[in-house]
Amino acid sequence: MTTPSAVILLSGGLDSATVLALARAEGRKCYCLTVSYGQRHSIELDAAKRVSGSLRCEDHKFISVDLTLFGGSALTDDIAVPKDSVGEGIPITYVPARNTVMLSLALAYAETLGAHEIWVGVNAVDYSGYPDCRPEYVQAFQTMARLATKAGVEGQALSIRAPLIHWTKTEIIRRGLDLGVDYGITHSCYDPTPEGRACGRCDSCLIRGRAFAELGMTDPALLPL
Amino acid sequence: MTTPSAVILLSGGLDSATVLALARAEGRKCYCLTVSYGQRHSIELDAAKRVSGSLRCEDHKFISVDLTLFGGSALTDDIAVPKDSVGEGIPITYVPARNTVMLSLALAYAETLGAHEIWVGVNAVDYSGYPDCRPEYVQAFQTMARLATKAGVEGQALSIRAPLIHWTKTEIIRRGLDLGVDYGITHSCYDPTPEGRACGRCDSCLIRGRAFAELGMTDPALLPL
Repeated sequence: MTTPSAVILLSGGLDSATVLALARAEGRKCYCLTVSYGQRHSIELDAAKRVSGSLRCEDHKFISVDLTLFGGSALTDDIAVPKDSVGEGIPITYVPARNTVMLSLALAYAETLGAHEIWVGVNAVDYSGYPDCRPEYVQAFQTMARLATKAGVEGQALSIRAPLIHWTKTEIIRRGLDLGVDYGITHSCYDPTPEGRACGRCDSCLIRGRAFAELGMTDPALLPL
Repeated sequence: MTTPSAVILLSGGLDSATVLALARAEGRKCYCLTVSYGQRHSIELDAAKRVSGSLRCEDHKFISVDLTLFGGSALTDDIAVPKDSVGEGIPITYVPARNTVMLSLALAYAETLGAHEIWVGVNAVDYSGYPDCRPEYVQAFQTMARLATKAGVEGQALSIRAPLIHWTKTEIIRRGLDLGVDYGITHSCYDPTPEGRACGRCDSCLIRGRAFAELGMTDPALLPL
């Protein structure tokens, strides 16, 4: 039996680093894809490079698509990132159709490789405000993807693997630490310092920080260099 | 009642030009989106500009995403385009996940605009070899898109309109001519001459040419300038 290949969507953040480690632990040949959608921070791309370098991957591709052309989010526009409290509802850091665009590009990559799995770090627990992080969304994307592709037409099922979807941030980190993930090289902050350090105050930093605290740790991304 | 807005995927070819004319005829405010996915021919982009200029549109955005990074198609790679016969099965001009990528970008644009429709010129009759041109695919994309977006979560249905899906090429052209579409400014050829003229011999040219012939016409894209 040949080793199954998988495309891994890798942002450089905590979640996708854990997903890559999980896919490796399940014996997948991992082809990483990082989508640059007009983020303000090339820091994220550098983090993605560090993560794929630290775990064994077959290849790592970077693709750009400038979603700032459409506007509509604090992550791509000049809207201030909210600080010091985790909001309710759909956050303004939501990027329109981001996961759909990223999964579509992963689908193109998977189809070219002949890979039958796409792994993605979406999570419905800590980020329930994002519509495209829910299990019913992932399921619907998979149904669509199976109809979209040559492989699907030829009867080979394509799977969207979202192993973190029901895990808390604490569970994600605990599992990643078991697998040897170095979270110090990941980057999840929405509003880093000019030196590229996590701010410690945006939604993303607060959620990470609390989860590490539950494990009796300090988020290594917040430790002095 | 406000005029409904729609995103129109506009390639510059015969089908999408007709779709734009249909959306205009149904009173939509049209926001055109042309996706440059690493095509060899900027001729297609020029044709898209001509088409949106000739019909009244609110805006026309161009977005690039380099699917050549993944390889896998005669339209983006250096594989020879087949000539003089319309093939069976999935053609080698198939671009992996192209419609999924283009519809995803249209979804991002629609969500930013607050538009509830995406119009696309997919057609299951003449191009039955492409899996992502089938009605069940379009339906599955719509289901996924409704789950993906803020508008969907808030109960506003998003529709993928594919009015040409069951029409023959002849029916498409007849309807477009009724609506005043100038097919001489469209470009559908897979392998144009260095001067940017249609070759008259690739699948796409042959299918167009036959349809115009059925209407007792010569394809205006093949007429001498």
